[in-house]
Amino acid sequence: MKNVPFKGIIAYPITPFNTNDQVDISLFKAQVERLIVSGSHGIAPLGSTGVLPYLTDVEKESITEATTQQVAGRVPTLVGVSNLTTERTIYHAQYAEKAGATAVMIIPMSYWKLTDDEIVAHYDKVASKINIPIMAYNNPATGGIDMSPSLLKRLLEIPNVTMIKESTGDVQRMHILKKELGEEVAFYNGSNPLALAAFAAGATGWCTAAANIIPELNLSLYEMIRLNDLGAAQKVFLKQLDVLKFIVAKGLPRAIKAGLELLGEKGGELRNPLQPLGEHDTQALAKILDSVKLVQN
Amino acid sequence: MKNVPFKGIIAYPITPFNTNDQVDISLFKAQVERLIVSGSHGIAPLGSTGVLPYLTDVEKESITEATTQQVAGRVPTLVGVSNLTTERTIYHAQYAEKAGATAVMIIPMSYWKLTDDEIVAHYDKVASKINIPIMAYNNPATGGIDMSPSLLKRLLEIPNVTMIKESTGDVQRMHILKKELGEEVAFYNGSNPLALAAFAAGATGWCTAAANIIPELNLSLYEMIRLNDLGAAQKVFLKQLDVLKFIVAKGLPRAIKAGLELLGEKGGELRNPLQPLGEHDTQALAKILDSVKLVQN
Amino acid sequence: MKNVPFKGIIAYPITPFNTNDQVDISLFKAQVERLIVSGSHGIAPLGSTGVLPYLTDVEKESITEATTQQVAGRVPTLVGVSNLTTERTIYHAQYAEKAGATAVMIIPMSYWKLTDDEIVAHYDKVASKINIPIMAYNNPATGGIDMSPSLLKRLLEIPNVTMIKESTGDVQRMHILKKELGEEVAFYNGSNPLALAAFAAGATGWCTAAANIIPELNLSLYEMIRLNDLGAAQKVFLKQLDVLKFIVAKGLPRAIKAGLELLGEKGGELRNPLQPLGEHDTQALAKILDSVKLVQN
Amino acid sequence: MKNVPFKGIIAYPITPFNTNDQVDISLFKAQVERLIVSGSHGIAPLGSTGVLPYLTDVEKESITEATTQQVAGRVPTLVGVSNLTTERTIYHAQYAEKAGATAVMIIPMSYWKLTDDEIVAHYDKVASKINIPIMAYNNPATGGIDMSPSLLKRLLEIPNVTMIKESTGDVQRMHILKKELGEEVAFYNGSNPLALAAFAAGATGWCTAAANIIPELNLSLYEMIRLNDLGAAQKVFLKQLDVLKFIVAKGLPRAIKAGLELLGEKGGELRNPLQPLGEHDTQALAKILDSVKLVQN
Repeated sequence: MKNVPFKGIIAYPITPFNTNDQVDISLFKAQVERLIVSGSHGIAPLGSTGVLPYLTDVEKESITEATTQQVAGRVPTLVGVSNLTTERTIYHAQYAEKAGATAVMIIPMSYWKLTDDEIVAHYDKVASKINIPIMAYNNPATGGIDMSPSLLKRLLEIPNVTMIKESTGDVQRMHILKKELGEEVAFYNGSNPLALAAFAAGATGWCTAAANIIPELNLSLYEMIRLNDLGAAQKVFLKQLDVLKFIVAKGLPRAIKAGLELLGEKGGELRNPLQPLGEHDTQALAKILDSVKLVQN
Repeated sequence: MKNVPFKGIIAYPITPFNTNDQVDISLFKAQVERLIVSGSHGIAPLGSTGVLPYLTDVEKESITEATTQQVAGRVPTLVGVSNLTTERTIYHAQYAEKAGATAVMIIPMSYWKLTDDEIVAHYDKVASKINIPIMAYNNPATGGIDMSPSLLKRLLEIPNVTMIKESTGDVQRMHILKKELGEEVAFYNGSNPLALAAFAAGATGWCTAAANIIPELNLSLYEMIRLNDLGAAQKVFLKQLDVLKFIVAKGLPRAIKAGLELLGEKGGELRNPLQPLGEHDTQALAKILDSVKLVQN
Repeated sequence: MKNVPFKGIIAYPITPFNTNDQVDISLFKAQVERLIVSGSHGIAPLGSTGVLPYLTDVEKESITEATTQQVAGRVPTLVGVSNLTTERTIYHAQYAEKAGATAVMIIPMSYWKLTDDEIVAHYDKVASKINIPIMAYNNPATGGIDMSPSLLKRLLEIPNVTMIKESTGDVQRMHILKKELGEEVAFYNGSNPLALAAFAAGATGWCTAAANIIPELNLSLYEMIRLNDLGAAQKVFLKQLDVLKFIVAKGLPRAIKAGLELLGEKGGELRNPLQPLGEHDTQALAKILDSVKLVQN
Repeated sequence: MKNVPFKGIIAYPITPFNTNDQVDISLFKAQVERLIVSGSHGIAPLGSTGVLPYLTDVEKESITEATTQQVAGRVPTLVGVSNLTTERTIYHAQYAEKAGATAVMIIPMSYWKLTDDEIVAHYDKVASKINIPIMAYNNPATGGIDMSPSLLKRLLEIPNVTMIKESTGDVQRMHILKKELGEEVAFYNGSNPLALAAFAAGATGWCTAAANIIPELNLSLYEMIRLNDLGAAQKVFLKQLDVLKFIVAKGLPRAIKAGLELLGEKGGELRNPLQPLGEHDTQALAKILDSVKLVQN
């Protein structure tokens, strides 16, 4: 039986910095706490939202530690450990396991487009060095590679590769995965505007940074799907669609920081060259959040 | 109140030819009868499946007449009247109305990419000359234009443009239509592999040539959605997915003809330069149909 | 030895209409005359610029006749005879030959994407019915099919298919054609903004509607290339680049009509749904033409 | 007057590793020496070919030092210092300057798509901290951002941003740069299969890894362009086209290593997850090199 520790809403915290360009661990912990208290079913630090590629090794380690300490086993944790080289991926995966992570997420980052054999060897080498499950992540837009269903099938033959996160933005792909990988495969949606279609296609969970600002709406969509109430699911999905489109269009770290601040929370600083949303975009977000009654007055 | 005469499965017959390259009206009528008897909720001749652009004006007229005669009011009819020029579009729309069609479908065909104003003027001129409703069809792949939600909104202000058929293949577009055009807009899915996602997004109907060969599966998907049984809908959708992918990949007229013949029905001839599926592809289709227990033994 | 009657600047006239939506043959002849007098090396009616797909069979025939009469053998003529069906393509190709055309141009128009075998059969059937040479035209944007170099190689094995017009907009393709089809293959560039790159890649000629408004610049580019003066070719190409980009971006029939009128010539009417350039775009074109000193004062 | 130290063929060495996954500095120096001796007009370490993103800071520093030591002023050096964060980019740019690099190359790497303002601020901050010129590199495929001509214009207003490397693969872009940025702008082509078109468009130089295996052909193309002999340039370009297409298709580090070994040179190891070309691809390359008479017998 495959070890599949996640379902529902898996929340992605941002990585906040202080004004000296250092990771603000205490603010990070506070944001993780908010995500747990608001009902998220899992916590996933060091993803795209958490600006993983912009961090030093030491910073990644401190975020990993802070996550497992703060979560303290209340929900499962999914730590991002992707790296261009196999050696560094192994290093961070082992670190995450030792720090108590429930599972790790790995996208085959590729400056040079990897062959299928190179990708399988990469996962295989990492998987053999850890004992916790791996979520294989397919996102051509950020990873530079589109892993085909047949390649994903090969990856799932590695014992501790047990989950797939799909972010091609093409709902057909999810149907094909389900069809070709078998009904029981656990796949997770990583494309926010496809959340309804992905659940309709049978996704086990939704990996989203939106839970930082609209957790009730995210959780409610999952609940309506669980209750088989498609009409209500449509309604609550349409209600949050503008938020989902906005945060994707503007970049998750920028948009989540702005959303947190509009809600009266601290967002911290971004790391250069990333800069905060401009006034115009911030007002557009305020208007969208206001339309779903979330902005502080 | 908008006049919206369609819901459910709207079936697209092919246009069969005889060995002298003439339209085989009697075979066409037999195929239309099969579609009605098998339970389709509407009949749509002269679409892409019916090779509209390959027909002469006289041929289009005889297909139109044959449809309304054979259907005889049992289900609504949706006649394709798209043409590169406004003048010919008006001509065929008026012909369809006079012949008793319930509604006409119009895609803004464009050799030269049309501006938004040109498209609105085109629909406006045609709409003013007929009294039956128009379904505006968005399909960048065949029409050469991607009509934006805001353009579709302008078209819906024309009184007898009451329905939208969406075939961009992007389910997000359907959500956006629903969000921007209002909950009550009637939109129809024209992208076969998106059938489940489209119904989950609130589509009123599914325009499909698949009903020529797997009507029970198409109708069952619609039924499961109506019953709010998402799990059963997923199951029946996955069952038909390989058929849907195959007919889209190989071209609907070729694939439907082959499918009909595999089922023991007459498929007629294609018009040059279109040629029948080769042996290899036909066997692949036979295997897929066999896996859903539809091939004659 | 292959029959290759074209080189240099092959000019594409528009098809002007009168206010009753009828083809204005006398204005068409006047425009053809202008093209010859200004030095074009060939005349190509019934192309995209000449709105071929918007015309009736009778209109196509009268344009064909008008062209050969007016040109009267002073330069070679290349008549567009493309059609969705093989039967109609043969009909128009035979008509053109009888009317005295030097050659015909054929793009494999495709509503339903054709297979390679269907395309070869299409050309083969047409070629066997005429005795004048054929230019095979590759333009995925308007024809819906991208013919690969290996498919073009198969077409060139048909005796009277002797020329290729390439409009993918990718200069690499021209190099590959040259490399794979042999040094002596005659290929023509149909992508205006690639004119310099195409000549540098060894194109035999440039098929262009720009010769309606900036013939001196088009001819001068060809001349500089013939003289092996790359520096001068760059200079004269950059001088006309904004015109080329403009006419492509706005649609050739609309842009050429506007350009003719800015030069003090008659442009005729367009056929619905095509409408003239708006005021804003017309002024933009005026400014561009003024910058190359061509607008009448 | 802008400081523009490069022209002609700018050669990109690979970064070879030993079997312990350590950079092999002595082999690297030997390869740089080959590039200089064979006539390259400039040396550009730490590019994509040199697997910059896979290296640690310390490894980047040792490659930088090794380059300037080995080149010893014989030709100008262009050191890649791109990094996701502004802070690290400044660090490596300052290191390169101190080590004696002639100029640095910077692509705005972006995991999160940067806004125009973020890109300008990034270059501005780096430029203000060094005194050597910067080549701004546009490559959407590897950098994730396509810098528009108007953005590049803004960058060129920064005093020591004096050169542009263009790798969109679209020759039109080069014409537009020339047109909009002025005749005197120094732009360099980074798209190997566009080498002829780029020189025809007025490129000052060609940044290429091909110089590791076919330096005579690369240099000869540049020479023929300088001599204004377009026919000869076409011929020598077509001769090397298959090599250029192959190395781009297979990934530069893998293909150059294989090419070096086929020529009897040492290629070193690649860093995981990158793996050597398979037998099949290696034989294909051997056949191509043999056809241009370069393989050792």
